[in-house]
Amino acid sequence: MIKVYGTSLSGNCHKVRMVLEALHLPYTWTEIDSSKGETRTPEFLARNPNGKVPVVELEPGVYLPESNAIICYLADASPLMPSDRLLRARVLSWLFFEQYSHEPYIAVARFLCRFHADPPSQRALLESKMPGGYRALEVLEKALADAPFLVGGRYTLADIALYAYTHVADEGGFDLARFPAIRSWLSRVAAQPGYVPMVAP
Amino acid sequence: MIKVYGTSLSGNCHKVRMVLEALHLPYTWTEIDSSKGETRTPEFLARNPNGKVPVVELEPGVYLPESNAIICYLADASPLMPSDRLLRARVLSWLFFEQYSHEPYIAVARFLCRFHADPPSQRALLESKMPGGYRALEVLEKALADAPFLVGGRYTLADIALYAYTHVADEGGFDLARFPAIRSWLSRVAAQPGYVPMVAP
Repeated sequence: MIKVYGTSLSGNCHKVRMVLEALHLPYTWTEIDSSKGETRTPEFLARNPNGKVPVVELEPGVYLPESNAIICYLADASPLMPSDRLLRARVLSWLFFEQYSHEPYIAVARFLCRFHADPPSQRALLESKMPGGYRALEVLEKALADAPFLVGGRYTLADIALYAYTHVADEGGFDLARFPAIRSWLSRVAAQPGYVPMVAP
Repeated sequence: MIKVYGTSLSGNCHKVRMVLEALHLPYTWTEIDSSKGETRTPEFLARNPNGKVPVVELEPGVYLPESNAIICYLADASPLMPSDRLLRARVLSWLFFEQYSHEPYIAVARFLCRFHADPPSQRALLESKMPGGYRALEVLEKALADAPFLVGGRYTLADIALYAYTHVADEGGFDLARFPAIRSWLSRVAAQPGYVPMVAP
């Protein structure tokens, strides 16, 4: 059975849970609290030398880190990953967009507001995250203006990866009121079979 | 024929050229200079709404952005991408590591030192990039300590993606002298058939 080492309120970890649940894959979940140094122990660094959650243990001693690589592995040959070469590349394109142009702004802003020990001290950093976050949301809004999902007209890993932090973007101070296509899409994602909400452990 | 819109001295763009050359795929290259606003024109934003290079035109009107998604598309079913499901996921894991934990430090430091109009004004930002860059190099060094290449003992997209900015890390002020495994691996990559150096347009 797949073992997940993750943090329930992390969007990156939530992606993994969403895919496991959507595909009805059995798994165990070990809650990791990085604020207590749990991603910096020798045991954890043996699982992922980069010291980040999520990491999965696929079979005893076989670990795989990086949320978007994990979901690609899990969804291999499933309806969540298109079989067509170009559509598969488009899913990957959204996954890399998410990690480079979306997460570093939207997830980091949320972290500063919700999980930092002293949010007021982070105000300048928080403000520096807003323009990039809104740029990412504008790219998403445009992509969803005429399409129900991000790739090929159906629900894929691209939607799961982008949903993870977009649906909690308000916790980082982003106002989704001006993004009607994103809001409709968030509702469509949450209505998918096997959908599981992000909840505290 | 594939059309690349790219910047020759960008590591992200260099990955695409390395894969095209390694696989002997015919292509044209249109040089884009973001410092002249060429990634912000309506024409360019129609190709990639996120306004970044590289973007490829696979056939007339069919565009694909994101360097690592592009190289996955190009190398599909080639020796540069393993056919084994787990090894393929390990390649993706390195590609996401590169975009999240390596490029934002090592490529950005290089940009500030080499391409910024006023590098001294960027000293604080540059210094903030060093610890993360060295952490990424330590993860790479560890992975290469007992292995000739990053995944499965042979040359793959993971090596190409990590090579692109690692081999010019010194231009951002990173000292590779303390990373012997990385230096040996850089030489092995540069000795691959079809290898093409990064050169100014």
